[in-house]
Amino acid sequence: MANKHEGFVTEITPRSEDFSQWYLDVVRRAELADYSPVKGCMVIRPYGYAIWELIQQALDVRIKATGHVNAYFPLFIPESLLHKEAEHVEGFSPQVAYVTHGGGEELEERLVVRPTSEAIVGTMYAKWVQGWRDLPILINQWANVVRWEKVTRPFLRTTEFLWQEGHTAHETEAESEAETLKILDLYAEVCETILAMPVVKGRKSESEKFAGALRTYSIEALMGDSRALQAGTSHNLGQNFAKAFDITFQARDKSVQHVWGTSWGVTTRLVGAVIMTHGDDSGLILPPLIAPYQVVVVPIGRDNWRETVLPKAQEIKAGLAAAGIRVTLDERDERPGWKFAEWELRGVPLRLEIGPRDIEKSQVLVARRDTREKIGVPMEGLAGRIKELLGDVQRTLFDRARAFRDDRTRRASSYEEFKKLMEGRPGFVVASWCGSAACEAQIKTDTQATLRNMPLGSATPTGACVRCDSPAAAEAWFAKAY
Amino acid sequence: MANKHEGFVTEITPRSEDFSQWYLDVVRRAELADYSPVKGCMVIRPYGYAIWELIQQALDVRIKATGHVNAYFPLFIPESLLHKEAEHVEGFSPQVAYVTHGGGEELEERLVVRPTSEAIVGTMYAKWVQGWRDLPILINQWANVVRWEKVTRPFLRTTEFLWQEGHTAHETEAESEAETLKILDLYAEVCETILAMPVVKGRKSESEKFAGALRTYSIEALMGDSRALQAGTSHNLGQNFAKAFDITFQARDKSVQHVWGTSWGVTTRLVGAVIMTHGDDSGLILPPLIAPYQVVVVPIGRDNWRETVLPKAQEIKAGLAAAGIRVTLDERDERPGWKFAEWELRGVPLRLEIGPRDIEKSQVLVARRDTREKIGVPMEGLAGRIKELLGDVQRTLFDRARAFRDDRTRRASSYEEFKKLMEGRPGFVVASWCGSAACEAQIKTDTQATLRNMPLGSATPTGACVRCDSPAAAEAWFAKAY
Repeated sequence: MANKHEGFVTEITPRSEDFSQWYLDVVRRAELADYSPVKGCMVIRPYGYAIWELIQQALDVRIKATGHVNAYFPLFIPESLLHKEAEHVEGFSPQVAYVTHGGGEELEERLVVRPTSEAIVGTMYAKWVQGWRDLPILINQWANVVRWEKVTRPFLRTTEFLWQEGHTAHETEAESEAETLKILDLYAEVCETILAMPVVKGRKSESEKFAGALRTYSIEALMGDSRALQAGTSHNLGQNFAKAFDITFQARDKSVQHVWGTSWGVTTRLVGAVIMTHGDDSGLILPPLIAPYQVVVVPIGRDNWRETVLPKAQEIKAGLAAAGIRVTLDERDERPGWKFAEWELRGVPLRLEIGPRDIEKSQVLVARRDTREKIGVPMEGLAGRIKELLGDVQRTLFDRARAFRDDRTRRASSYEEFKKLMEGRPGFVVASWCGSAACEAQIKTDTQATLRNMPLGSATPTGACVRCDSPAAAEAWFAKAY
Repeated sequence: MANKHEGFVTEITPRSEDFSQWYLDVVRRAELADYSPVKGCMVIRPYGYAIWELIQQALDVRIKATGHVNAYFPLFIPESLLHKEAEHVEGFSPQVAYVTHGGGEELEERLVVRPTSEAIVGTMYAKWVQGWRDLPILINQWANVVRWEKVTRPFLRTTEFLWQEGHTAHETEAESEAETLKILDLYAEVCETILAMPVVKGRKSESEKFAGALRTYSIEALMGDSRALQAGTSHNLGQNFAKAFDITFQARDKSVQHVWGTSWGVTTRLVGAVIMTHGDDSGLILPPLIAPYQVVVVPIGRDNWRETVLPKAQEIKAGLAAAGIRVTLDERDERPGWKFAEWELRGVPLRLEIGPRDIEKSQVLVARRDTREKIGVPMEGLAGRIKELLGDVQRTLFDRARAFRDDRTRRASSYEEFKKLMEGRPGFVVASWCGSAACEAQIKTDTQATLRNMPLGSATPTGACVRCDSPAAAEAWFAKAY
């Protein structure tokens, strides 16, 4: 766990000074991840993995509650299968890793290390689906995938990453569209209630959609440096993969039809999103619902603290643990101040300080990581009060992130205004758009901003495209993005 | 889930007639796994994966309760790292898959798709460990691994499989040995109490130990065809990997020393072990603790059962679910007899039949999958009674499997007797052994039996080796094995 002997980075770069370096410092110093000898691949260290496990659990329970089941498909995909869907192979070919030798021999056909599993899943669904009674198929898998990346960044973009990928098959387009949006809602709900990270749900433009999809939807979040981050995607695949992989079924009217597919995923990138949404100059700030430790108990005292304070600290720890709170007790031989800094760096939501005088007064001092407020809390009814405070930290983090995002979301009605607003790192700029790829590309060239998505539920715009003055087709959110 | 349209195998081969074909039929018909277009790789279907998830949960909670934490290391290992430990590379080289191209370019150094992660973990531990305060490191990971196999069999031996692999580092040999045995106990406890599968804990011979280990321990189970199956292994790596990867630490006495390592794993093979331990001619029999559905409710009735019986069946299902029982209700338009056979095939421990007369009598009929006993159970207090019955099925399955194993474990005092006992498929034959690899190899040549392990706690033998008459060094269990 905490390892003070690690050398290298002892302090972290201030967030305001260099956000990018601050991020790397936090990842390293909080022991979330480490570089590996494999180019572009990271090691997820126990503290980082524990955050991912809590995110996984929140997702898994919801994915199952909505009728999906987990399964596991092979890591390797014969190259020829990837080639069956034209747009899909075009999108992924440049990024794939190939296995050419196995068991001491050169393989007859190269195997692709899955960059995503539509090709192998589609092949199996073609075998499994015969009639409409076999539908829908609602399968999810938790897996590793590999996409060769030139520039990598822990959690945000790595050659290998962990994710869940859902793959479903339906009788009708309406059902596949409903599924796609149901999952988008599920992702948004997890991001907002569990990660305390507000997101915008919307549709991607044609140029940004998944290779082979009919329509791609995304959730977009705003990081602490005002850059946008795509936090999850949900694709209505239409019948594209069904046609490529020959997934047909006998319909209720006896005709033979292709299924309608969806696929959707979120990744370990969410850990990076949490760091960049909530962190500050002292390090990580974790929303309580995904904090491996929600509370750290730090005994305060003179040299004899092991005799005078530790027993009470242990009792408090046991009481909180029994109440279902994730709690740790730091009994290392270090100064309290050093411990405070260490656990602040690691983003533990609440610190409980207990010293001889607190014991006398039958109270503890609780320090909130989010507001840095210090509150005296009576020992009596401690667990209940701590749960309330954890709930309050969770809400405060969300409210703060939403206020930050809202403050940095502006509307542009002319292209001049758009370009001016987009200078520096402004956050989101909302504008009407004609729907043409040319305008989208020109905006990117002129401002480095990309079209993040077209939010669901936006009113149909009545005006003109912010760039070309043609009639607007949609409201779109633009931002400089990760 | 259940899909009657699947074609191919409609009945399963009797177990007594052809155990091997029976196994494949059960895997396929119960929709546990399916063949994939990738040679040697299987798809784990939702029903099979749900069993694996329950096994995972049982293991994960125990692995964490014993102080271990989860992490994630890269899938790829640079070839040069694998070569650092001489025995390790010799053992694994013939089985590895190589990635040679990525991102459209040929790689400078080939990457091995991990067959196991000692090499990459060791590299990271060398970075993380400085002094004795950093020890022990107790890390586990849940991952996929790839070992090229010529002959494969779903769950038992596949090119890609899922597992957990623990990797620990300690200050002393005593600690690493204690850790190795603690995990062996943990594995045995999970197999016996959760999988209802008795195992023998013991030490592997030199010729069967893990490539690079000092000592390997295993748990060995006996399958329904009287062949043995290695169900898990725990290795004391000594300082071999520490020396190869330069994992040193400053000890309490200020000297610089190499750490003592362990590694240990169990795999999706355990799903195959469960099938082969408990199944019968009707299909799978699942121990309740790993049954995705512990209870299936089947409404019985005439044409109007949807009106007369279904509401009560739904009420029962809801009541059992609320009591924490994993329950499903089969309301498909099929004959009850067809449903019975389907759920027997899938090994659901208890079937609840509910018909109009049961409703009148305010009872249900419970059919046990293990004994085929049918028991009338009053609606009043149903959940409590079902829990008792599930507990009883769990115990009965274990007792039955242990009796089967004990019946098929014999002792040989002469080589003639040994060879005679080992004819056909006798189960385990216990004998004294001198410890020489030559005798072990000769026994294998003469009888096809391998030395499974030398059970812990066996009395030191006083007699002679069963084959060569030299003084015996150990009691060993031999069997024909998977």
